[in-house]
Amino acid sequence: MEKPYVLGIDIGGQTAKYGIVDARGNVRAQSVTVSNSQSSAEEFINDLCDGIKALAGKEYPLDQIRGIGVGAPNGNYYTGAIESAVNLTWAKNERVELVKMMEERLGVPVALTNDANAAAVGEMTYGVARGMKNFIMITLGTGVGSGIVINGDVVFGHDGFAGELGHTCSVRTNGRICGCGKTGCLETYASATGVARTARELLELTDRKSVLRTMPADNITSKDVFNAAMEGDQLAKEIFEFTGRILGEAFADFVAFSSPEAIVLFGGLTKAGDLIYKPIVEHMNLNLMPMWRGKIKVLFSTLKESDAAILGASALGWEL
Amino acid sequence: MEKPYVLGIDIGGQTAKYGIVDARGNVRAQSVTVSNSQSSAEEFINDLCDGIKALAGKEYPLDQIRGIGVGAPNGNYYTGAIESAVNLTWAKNERVELVKMMEERLGVPVALTNDANAAAVGEMTYGVARGMKNFIMITLGTGVGSGIVINGDVVFGHDGFAGELGHTCSVRTNGRICGCGKTGCLETYASATGVARTARELLELTDRKSVLRTMPADNITSKDVFNAAMEGDQLAKEIFEFTGRILGEAFADFVAFSSPEAIVLFGGLTKAGDLIYKPIVEHMNLNLMPMWRGKIKVLFSTLKESDAAILGASALGWEL
Repeated sequence: MEKPYVLGIDIGGQTAKYGIVDARGNVRAQSVTVSNSQSSAEEFINDLCDGIKALAGKEYPLDQIRGIGVGAPNGNYYTGAIESAVNLTWAKNERVELVKMMEERLGVPVALTNDANAAAVGEMTYGVARGMKNFIMITLGTGVGSGIVINGDVVFGHDGFAGELGHTCSVRTNGRICGCGKTGCLETYASATGVARTARELLELTDRKSVLRTMPADNITSKDVFNAAMEGDQLAKEIFEFTGRILGEAFADFVAFSSPEAIVLFGGLTKAGDLIYKPIVEHMNLNLMPMWRGKIKVLFSTLKESDAAILGASALGWEL
Repeated sequence: MEKPYVLGIDIGGQTAKYGIVDARGNVRAQSVTVSNSQSSAEEFINDLCDGIKALAGKEYPLDQIRGIGVGAPNGNYYTGAIESAVNLTWAKNERVELVKMMEERLGVPVALTNDANAAAVGEMTYGVARGMKNFIMITLGTGVGSGIVINGDVVFGHDGFAGELGHTCSVRTNGRICGCGKTGCLETYASATGVARTARELLELTDRKSVLRTMPADNITSKDVFNAAMEGDQLAKEIFEFTGRILGEAFADFVAFSSPEAIVLFGGLTKAGDLIYKPIVEHMNLNLMPMWRGKIKVLFSTLKESDAAILGASALGWEL
């Protein structure tokens, strides 16, 4: 009999989320392992595999799982390794042979790709990009990830690393220092950490009033900025306006590259809703060539945040 | 008997170049029609078709030509029309049904694509990109064109207009006004006209010595700047250094998109050789993520300038 399940894993800067998925795309069970407390890749992978075994338990035993698909920052589909992922403490300057290490521990075939590529497959299969052949997935989390779909296929490029749009240059002069070693990367502005950075900069460089001044600057998160904006805080609103503008300008360049039907947004920052959506669309259109103005859809993912990445990654599992 | 020839046409801002090509990729005969003196699309297409008939003559009669492939700015493969091409005087704000109009006049099937896409096909078939599955073609002429090849296919995008990298934004603040209606486009800096613009700006804004001061500023061309640089003129050398830096920075972002094996350069500005090649490679690597530094080839086309675009466009003719 065919094995009835696959397992999808989404490895992020803070946690790894994973779930057992059936052939109809239902996430039957899911769990989380922290990904930022381990001092080595081996330690993380041991924790993760222990978590998977516990989740599988008696109901979904490993011998009923056809394959495991993993989405991770800098996950390379061709090599099966995570290579120098700046947002993962245990893979910053290292090449982690994730596929090999997981297969040794679990005895189930494993496939790896970029976390944003996995999310793109999830949207194409179950989400707002269903039926689309050309779209760009942008994940706005701790960092900014991207998955580019052209003619129905995820673009891997010559070496498997295509689609690092979070590390295109948004601010050339005096741009912020990025974890990747460059300056001015989109990710330093348009991620959850980027929003917090913008808040700290504005609080430091201006005397403007804001409820954000009531908290220690170093502890401010994008969620604090969102809450302040929802309470009507003008500075907090402008932080999202600024973030949206940076994203919109960058999107205009992405459109000039692959002329997608839509750009699909996913991740924590999309919770800001119109606060970020309106400036994105406005500044994207201002920076598009006339032939594209008003014609490129910008869509928020409608999949449950945890499900999208798990479902996308799990789709790789069926191919194993 | 199979018809033994195809015809390839490269329409640029100044001239249209075309040639009869045989099955081995030899350009058997070629000719040129000016493309900037006509007041309407109809007038240009009449001139072009007259030129083609004269070239075909008795040796290569039109009934021996299987198909005609055309590369033109904003040429759309899906619709067969040139749509609002800012560098063509007779198509600035117009949609020109080129395929239909040429077929009516010549009685031979016609296919159209972007001029840079055609050049990319030419490089892939006959040039330095032979055997490559992932590369980006950049044409540095009156404007900056691009053809993106992923997994061996030219990227057309959702609407047929993908690959407008000359209109990605290189300079966000106080960027130059572009013919496309935006500001700061790569093309306003890194084309032949962009080099001349840089020269005029530097001569106007500084008191620095340069042989370029001996000529009327409005008449300076990129060729004048090149000649001055070859004579050791420091200002002229810096103009190419600046142009190369702008290109290199832009290329780094293109690599983050599709992770190509190589970027292939073609067109007038490549005649500047190391004057432009060195700053391109230096600034591309400075702006690449560490994993790509030193690994992306930058290649000059080795095809004869006129042949590359004609051969590329002609390849479409075989498919008709």
